[in-house]
Amino acid sequence: MIRTETVRKILSWYEGETPGLKSNLSRLLMHGRLAGTGRVVILPVDQGFEHGPARSFAPNPAAYDPHYLYELAIEAGVSGYAAPLGLLEHGADAFAGEVPLIMKMNSGNSLAANSSDQALTGTVDDAMRLGCVGVGFTIYPGSDHAYDMMEELREISHEAKSKGLLSVVWSYPRGGKISKEGETALDIVAYSAHMAALMGATIIKVKLPSNRIDLDAAKKTYEKNHIPSETIADRVRHVMQASFAGKRVVVFSGGEAKTREDLLEEVRGIREGGGNGSIIGRNSFQRSKEDAIALLREVMDIYA
Amino acid sequence: MIRTETVRKILSWYEGETPGLKSNLSRLLMHGRLAGTGRVVILPVDQGFEHGPARSFAPNPAAYDPHYLYELAIEAGVSGYAAPLGLLEHGADAFAGEVPLIMKMNSGNSLAANSSDQALTGTVDDAMRLGCVGVGFTIYPGSDHAYDMMEELREISHEAKSKGLLSVVWSYPRGGKISKEGETALDIVAYSAHMAALMGATIIKVKLPSNRIDLDAAKKTYEKNHIPSETIADRVRHVMQASFAGKRVVVFSGGEAKTREDLLEEVRGIREGGGNGSIIGRNSFQRSKEDAIALLREVMDIYA
Amino acid sequence: MIRTETVRKILSWYEGETPGLKSNLSRLLMHGRLAGTGRVVILPVDQGFEHGPARSFAPNPAAYDPHYLYELAIEAGVSGYAAPLGLLEHGADAFAGEVPLIMKMNSGNSLAANSSDQALTGTVDDAMRLGCVGVGFTIYPGSDHAYDMMEELREISHEAKSKGLLSVVWSYPRGGKISKEGETALDIVAYSAHMAALMGATIIKVKLPSNRIDLDAAKKTYEKNHIPSETIADRVRHVMQASFAGKRVVVFSGGEAKTREDLLEEVRGIREGGGNGSIIGRNSFQRSKEDAIALLREVMDIYA
Amino acid sequence: MIRTETVRKILSWYEGETPGLKSNLSRLLMHGRLAGTGRVVILPVDQGFEHGPARSFAPNPAAYDPHYLYELAIEAGVSGYAAPLGLLEHGADAFAGEVPLIMKMNSGNSLAANSSDQALTGTVDDAMRLGCVGVGFTIYPGSDHAYDMMEELREISHEAKSKGLLSVVWSYPRGGKISKEGETALDIVAYSAHMAALMGATIIKVKLPSNRIDLDAAKKTYEKNHIPSETIADRVRHVMQASFAGKRVVVFSGGEAKTREDLLEEVRGIREGGGNGSIIGRNSFQRSKEDAIALLREVMDIYA
Amino acid sequence: MIRTETVRKILSWYEGETPGLKSNLSRLLMHGRLAGTGRVVILPVDQGFEHGPARSFAPNPAAYDPHYLYELAIEAGVSGYAAPLGLLEHGADAFAGEVPLIMKMNSGNSLAANSSDQALTGTVDDAMRLGCVGVGFTIYPGSDHAYDMMEELREISHEAKSKGLLSVVWSYPRGGKISKEGETALDIVAYSAHMAALMGATIIKVKLPSNRIDLDAAKKTYEKNHIPSETIADRVRHVMQASFAGKRVVVFSGGEAKTREDLLEEVRGIREGGGNGSIIGRNSFQRSKEDAIALLREVMDIYA
Repeated sequence: MIRTETVRKILSWYEGETPGLKSNLSRLLMHGRLAGTGRVVILPVDQGFEHGPARSFAPNPAAYDPHYLYELAIEAGVSGYAAPLGLLEHGADAFAGEVPLIMKMNSGNSLAANSSDQALTGTVDDAMRLGCVGVGFTIYPGSDHAYDMMEELREISHEAKSKGLLSVVWSYPRGGKISKEGETALDIVAYSAHMAALMGATIIKVKLPSNRIDLDAAKKTYEKNHIPSETIADRVRHVMQASFAGKRVVVFSGGEAKTREDLLEEVRGIREGGGNGSIIGRNSFQRSKEDAIALLREVMDIYA
Repeated sequence: MIRTETVRKILSWYEGETPGLKSNLSRLLMHGRLAGTGRVVILPVDQGFEHGPARSFAPNPAAYDPHYLYELAIEAGVSGYAAPLGLLEHGADAFAGEVPLIMKMNSGNSLAANSSDQALTGTVDDAMRLGCVGVGFTIYPGSDHAYDMMEELREISHEAKSKGLLSVVWSYPRGGKISKEGETALDIVAYSAHMAALMGATIIKVKLPSNRIDLDAAKKTYEKNHIPSETIADRVRHVMQASFAGKRVVVFSGGEAKTREDLLEEVRGIREGGGNGSIIGRNSFQRSKEDAIALLREVMDIYA
Repeated sequence: MIRTETVRKILSWYEGETPGLKSNLSRLLMHGRLAGTGRVVILPVDQGFEHGPARSFAPNPAAYDPHYLYELAIEAGVSGYAAPLGLLEHGADAFAGEVPLIMKMNSGNSLAANSSDQALTGTVDDAMRLGCVGVGFTIYPGSDHAYDMMEELREISHEAKSKGLLSVVWSYPRGGKISKEGETALDIVAYSAHMAALMGATIIKVKLPSNRIDLDAAKKTYEKNHIPSETIADRVRHVMQASFAGKRVVVFSGGEAKTREDLLEEVRGIREGGGNGSIIGRNSFQRSKEDAIALLREVMDIYA
Repeated sequence: MIRTETVRKILSWYEGETPGLKSNLSRLLMHGRLAGTGRVVILPVDQGFEHGPARSFAPNPAAYDPHYLYELAIEAGVSGYAAPLGLLEHGADAFAGEVPLIMKMNSGNSLAANSSDQALTGTVDDAMRLGCVGVGFTIYPGSDHAYDMMEELREISHEAKSKGLLSVVWSYPRGGKISKEGETALDIVAYSAHMAALMGATIIKVKLPSNRIDLDAAKKTYEKNHIPSETIADRVRHVMQASFAGKRVVVFSGGEAKTREDLLEEVRGIREGGGNGSIIGRNSFQRSKEDAIALLREVMDIYA
Repeated sequence: MIRTETVRKILSWYEGETPGLKSNLSRLLMHGRLAGTGRVVILPVDQGFEHGPARSFAPNPAAYDPHYLYELAIEAGVSGYAAPLGLLEHGADAFAGEVPLIMKMNSGNSLAANSSDQALTGTVDDAMRLGCVGVGFTIYPGSDHAYDMMEELREISHEAKSKGLLSVVWSYPRGGKISKEGETALDIVAYSAHMAALMGATIIKVKLPSNRIDLDAAKKTYEKNHIPSETIADRVRHVMQASFAGKRVVVFSGGEAKTREDLLEEVRGIREGGGNGSIIGRNSFQRSKEDAIALLREVMDIYA
């Protein structure tokens, strides 16, 4: 399949990067059901680390097996599969080259009293060894460890990009001046996306924002400038604007498992607002494979 | 002795690893009484560090001598012997090649007020110099130092695996949101095993879980999905499931010295639940050599 | 496009390699017109170095422009494009991800009195920067510099493979005990392919052998063992046998420009003898783009 | 199987080496039919490099397939299998841990006019990656490149031993003051074995010496001191003496394919003279697998 | 002087170490008045760092001059002289080769509020430059910095041993669960010696233990197993047992200056209990040279 104009245009936004990195970005954008559309749906599986195995996989025990997750990603035709070292290792050989891989480089867990940091769990060498197109990294803007995490991101991103790997940043605000509800507030999400862009993220992952402005200091600006925020599309449009006027690839996560219709409604809003796509974990691997593939196809059909 | 189909199958699960690492894993799985069965019994001796020499060796003073520990491992025909640098050094030459060695790379001690961390005490170079098949590392998921320990593991595991050495992870939850009884709760042990797998552990070591669910957030999941936990076998089966659907080698520790019958009962449960074996320290080296070998043989006869 | 059984089988032959390398090999084998067939056609353009620009490009001056060569490779749907540093640099960004790239790492030229060596002209870092799937290297078994070239190959191949890049070896015998006609003799070509395999080549490139046995020491063996050599297919079959019983990917070059029918005849022989494909340079870029694409399509249709 | 006194004694001769190296030497000495006897039979397959594939494998075409060679080594129960990088790579995973591997690090070929050197074709990293117990290296004492080759050996041996790998030295005199017949003369072979020992070889490989003294300067000494050289055993005894009074492991090669009875006669002489064993290539892999295994068993029965 | 059987036996306990390290250990064990006896008396001078110069040297102002300390060590015929970088530098040339040197690598001081850590003050390179046989390092098991100090020891010990230098560990418990009196309690001292051994110490230095058990968790063990602790010899015997069944060289410090008779009484106890010797600082250099030599001779006569 020949690269489309849409993909060509997206690649042109990454003008400072090497052809190697663009080649890997192209692999992601030209893969699966959404190949060539400029939209992506990514399957992320790091919930086992975050919430524990039973809470993640008991609803669909087939998903305990790492090969199942590769198969789900490949059969559904998603754009990429993101997971920590161990999950990628078990399948990287059997499914070599069948789906673009993103190695999640840090992970938090629910046992720790401290939820404002994560542990580094993989290396760029590992990502190279397993044939990944990129590395993924979470930062918690606002948290006590935000600056440390950003500095870790700086190191890893620099090393990864020097080898042609994408830097995918999960930018999840929490702590600091942010209220609990504020973690998905529009101003906070837009701010978090912008910081990821400023740190050189190739792909930015944020939560779908709510219609709330959290920081007092920001409220006046949002009001005065009449920034629309009523609909999902409005809010996605604003986040895209904050991501270099839409010139970075931004994907949105839906979070906890929800009904099919709620999810599709969100996807329509993301598409309408110009977002690049979704990252769908629990809503896919906690369903049976048949249901998951059906749902992912519906999602991708909306984006296509 | 020619590699069995069982061992061949286990090696196939480590598909992302080098032939060098698989060769070392094969050495462990093809050694001693349990060679070829896919089960392992490992003799660990780091209690001198953890509890002090008298509490560890006074019940059987012959065990103060490092050569005795090598002899015990060799004569009993266990699959491997795991100990810190100093213990391995004294015997590595005299018994070169007679039993697979695992160098324990970090250790805590009972003098420290802080029991949420351990000190690094060996290097991968040391492990190579002494002819080890792998390195061992303890993490305390949940503790204040959990993320630091995980990052140390990441460094050591990456270096070890790049040289063909196994990464054996002691995943011992404590602190954070975990209650004291929760350290052996089923949800916590399964979670700890899963995190070790995600970090690329070749072999996972956890405590035998009790019939308790500790995290509130997990209770609903365990109830709703009817995860069986009545018998030892039920619980071992769940831990294996959390370890990549049983595709990682997992061994269980019994902890403090106990009666022969209690120990054998546990072993029967581990076998029935599909666990790969036991790591038996104080229950072996605190008995006379004759009694220890007799007991280890009984254990291995159950697994065989 | 889902990986085929044929490709899966080929990847399984590279069992000692990382998933990263297999992933790059898969990219080559799953690209273009021949995707999934286990056959490849590669466009090589290093004749400018070897013979000078006019002898290479004057017959079709459009080919002086590096972008033209990318377009030819992409539009024709060949499996990969191999060229020295400079040619790849000019186009690597514009066509990022559109065709698997192989960086030719050494090149000889027609001005040098010494035709038994080549100069290193690229680095593995360059290949990474430009997003290549592999590196190419020429050895001249038999020549005065054969051992030096092999040792350069050893260094480059080791570095490339450690980063997941393929090692493609042009094994072109000359000098030493080899007569001029012997450079394409069956025994010499088979021997050269075998040496490339022994040095760890992922893909082997040799000249299509003639029906001649050149080394006196070998003649007896060929006669005694009745090794068939009458047809192109016979000879290709023998070369494949010498390449680990056909378990390495071997492509054949046709050499100088020739008639369409001669070329297709050769291709039919290669296919029948079990060869993996062709590397076609002057016969493509010295024709007009339209003619070249038509011819390459005919070739690929035979292989498909 | 518990290490024997014989093996323990052999290991004690390598007193300056690390436990890691001794552990690898122990793996070799405790493997296969001759485990524990202090004798070894090694299968070497680098003749494809030396003489070309057809001259090596056409007599038994099954041997073109690298897996066949692994199977032959494993099924016959030889002590180890030595081959260049490419041959070891194809099978290192499938047969991981089933037979001790030695990576041959340099190789010559029959196309080169210059037969006084070899090309480096593997690295110590490769040997580690594939799980080898040691590396093999050829020197040509007497040749124009002898000093260069010795210096390469010095580098590789130092790196290999620092990682616990054995250094196996093929010491094959040629050129310089040595006549063609002198290449197997007793004084020359003893001299070559001694130089390998002086360079730190763990295992020395020489040709079986003839009853000839080649160097004029040496003749007087051999006569004056009445060094016996009539029988094979006499000559082997002298070579062992030259190898640190028999305190290095020395194996003898028989060279070209010969009759079963000639080979067994040589083996009896080696055993009687105190040699450690044989390295048997063409006499095994050029026979059918059944015949080869039968012959190797006969040889090993003599040594056992 | 030919190495004695006693020294030969001690060296054999360090089986995992290089001949280079054993050679340095032999230099220490074969030097001075106690050469060949397996006992050592070491002169340590780091009290200037610990307590300040006046408290250390005012009682005998000659000792302000570093040359004086070298002369004392040489004239008294002690086994070795241990001091920080600066002290060793001033005299290392003048007295090169006259007494085995140990460079103390870290030191605390009395000005710091924090007495649970020490500063690194020398490098292994310095120790090499000055011709030392080993390096000395203090750990404070139990203290807040215990794990950090152990990790520093790991680095320095690994580097030192890789260059053939001894690792001499001052294992001085304090802080954590240890009471002030517990710093010399029998269980604590034995535990500290054991940890030093586990970390690969060549020579272990501890304080002479009192007849006290400090850790509640340990009391039961000491009572139940009837571990004798009445006499100095009993307690030394237990510490030796905790040091790999007496297979590590352990020296005892007497601490503050005391009467001649008290000191000799302690020495008799150490000898009787199987300890390897004493480390005597203030009790020597705070006396006049004549008195100090007389006292050291008396001590050594007891050990001889």
